[in-house]
Amino acid sequence: MSIFLSTDLKYLQPYVPGEQPQDRRYIKLNTNESPFPPAPGAVVAAAEQAANLNLYSDPTCLPLKRAAADVYGLAPENVMAGNGSDENLAHIFRAFLTDKGIAFPDITYGFYPVLCSLLGIAHKVVPLRADFSIAVGDYKDVDCPVCIANPNAQTGIYLPPAEVQRLIEQSASRLVIVDEAYIDFGGQSCAPLVNKYKNLIVVQTMSKSRSLAGARVGFAFACAELIADLEAVRASFNPYNINRMSMAAAAASLSDSGYFADCTKKIQLVRQYTAINLNELGFEVLPSMSNFLLARHPAKGGEELYLALKERGILVRHFGDERIKDYIRVSIGTREQMDAFLGAVRAVIAEDV
Amino acid sequence: MSIFLSTDLKYLQPYVPGEQPQDRRYIKLNTNESPFPPAPGAVVAAAEQAANLNLYSDPTCLPLKRAAADVYGLAPENVMAGNGSDENLAHIFRAFLTDKGIAFPDITYGFYPVLCSLLGIAHKVVPLRADFSIAVGDYKDVDCPVCIANPNAQTGIYLPPAEVQRLIEQSASRLVIVDEAYIDFGGQSCAPLVNKYKNLIVVQTMSKSRSLAGARVGFAFACAELIADLEAVRASFNPYNINRMSMAAAAASLSDSGYFADCTKKIQLVRQYTAINLNELGFEVLPSMSNFLLARHPAKGGEELYLALKERGILVRHFGDERIKDYIRVSIGTREQMDAFLGAVRAVIAEDV
Repeated sequence: MSIFLSTDLKYLQPYVPGEQPQDRRYIKLNTNESPFPPAPGAVVAAAEQAANLNLYSDPTCLPLKRAAADVYGLAPENVMAGNGSDENLAHIFRAFLTDKGIAFPDITYGFYPVLCSLLGIAHKVVPLRADFSIAVGDYKDVDCPVCIANPNAQTGIYLPPAEVQRLIEQSASRLVIVDEAYIDFGGQSCAPLVNKYKNLIVVQTMSKSRSLAGARVGFAFACAELIADLEAVRASFNPYNINRMSMAAAAASLSDSGYFADCTKKIQLVRQYTAINLNELGFEVLPSMSNFLLARHPAKGGEELYLALKERGILVRHFGDERIKDYIRVSIGTREQMDAFLGAVRAVIAEDV
Repeated sequence: MSIFLSTDLKYLQPYVPGEQPQDRRYIKLNTNESPFPPAPGAVVAAAEQAANLNLYSDPTCLPLKRAAADVYGLAPENVMAGNGSDENLAHIFRAFLTDKGIAFPDITYGFYPVLCSLLGIAHKVVPLRADFSIAVGDYKDVDCPVCIANPNAQTGIYLPPAEVQRLIEQSASRLVIVDEAYIDFGGQSCAPLVNKYKNLIVVQTMSKSRSLAGARVGFAFACAELIADLEAVRASFNPYNINRMSMAAAAASLSDSGYFADCTKKIQLVRQYTAINLNELGFEVLPSMSNFLLARHPAKGGEELYLALKERGILVRHFGDERIKDYIRVSIGTREQMDAFLGAVRAVIAEDV
């Protein structure tokens, strides 16, 4: 740490992303990437822009915003586009922070508390139920902004739209941020509700269901007033935040609804297949509406399993949080990748017999 | 403005980038872009990554950091890579802010005061001399971080390395940020000094001299301790901040020193040609070591000239600041573009005769 670091950052604990090891080839099921390439039109559109990189990208992002708005029958004024969801979340937390902090579940996306610590705001932890579902009633008296992931990160558990609306309706003067990074794998987005509820922000990413993790594009959907506030913060931080290639790839991807439907359907089928097989191997598997499964084995600890699988060339993710430390999180890849994963799991379990 | 906007942001004035009009084709000399395409290898490297966008980019940016470090004989530990210079500046201002604010010249990059306002910190303005040069002596008693652009934004005036070192040496306990966005057009970088001076951060961008404005890649160079602090902030804000395509393009561009030398040399020659021609037309032209010129005509106001040129399909930039409102800023394009610009200027001036 240098002598110049701002005193309020001395205890900053940065977010630790899933490993991206460069030493050998793994079957990578640890960062919830899509196993499918981007939509063909997206690849072409991105490559076409490579020769034009001497010119800045369009700082208004208007064509991209329009493409994202069209998916939900919204207007471009209802959309902010960002260099990935994390950036959008950072702007949202910054724009709407209060001295009361921000509330979110105990088990959720680990980036939320990091952002709070960077911004110097408190966070109020509202524990999930014993079955890891969100108890909306527990937020009734929370008087600071609320942020939930739906489906929830790490668990994959989905909160039905009626419950999300109940959360939003608890107080019109309280902001509710719904992070829908994993909504496209069977859930129903709340984005169409942003003009009905002026206290709702829906966050989405193109990293998972759109196969564009490496392009870094995400969106925030909200009423025009909230988006105007967010755009002011974005333009004060990084006015040209999305590069030309990613902007073109994202717009092209959004226009290919057939490829998108095909990929997300496949993930859901392979998810079901993987869950059934894990159950048969004795695992408890949380009910997931995302592109990953959180699962635990009665005889093998989460970290132990993670390490044994890594040795066999399969990367999954393990979290140290007390409530989920016995689990592993496995991203849903192709059927072939999941068969390799299941084979490795079988081998690891058999070792102890 | 929504009712939810944080009270400290109610007067936020976002940065206003130069126009990127979509209505008609202009000769665009308003945002200091390069008129040359990126290095051929950069175009190929970027396009190759388009098919791999389903996978996240490497959050360590190690190969890119190594390529940038190599240019100055530094180590990867001396480099932070960001999604453009603005993002890096935002992280630097955030990481090292003090309750005394940040000091910079009255005429400089307009993004610095915007960042201060976003971060809720004061900024101390130290006026340039009457000839628009930086008076290093005026910073002697400044006890907060100092940020200068060298060559300076808007003026193009270069502060020689000995003067920069004098600024750094005024106080070892005061941070000095040197924004070298325009250093490659004839200046000498201070990046090699970052291990000598533990209070120095050098900021560079690939947007200008490397023809990669649309890719969004910039660097901060500093001693390992300062970079470690910056990396903690970066990873707390957006761990995967550079997309796969831009990362590959930037590394490839840095490896092509021949193309780089060729492009930056051409810009310097055309800059000289343009300045001479403007002088002949009666303009006062500030001595520029950048890829733009700040110039004023005795009979035509800056705004008037800007509007008349725009009508003729030539985009330059005009700033409303009192000290430079009589000037226009024109980016250096190709010889052909500058001839078109000079022709339009001649026509505009002739109108009044």
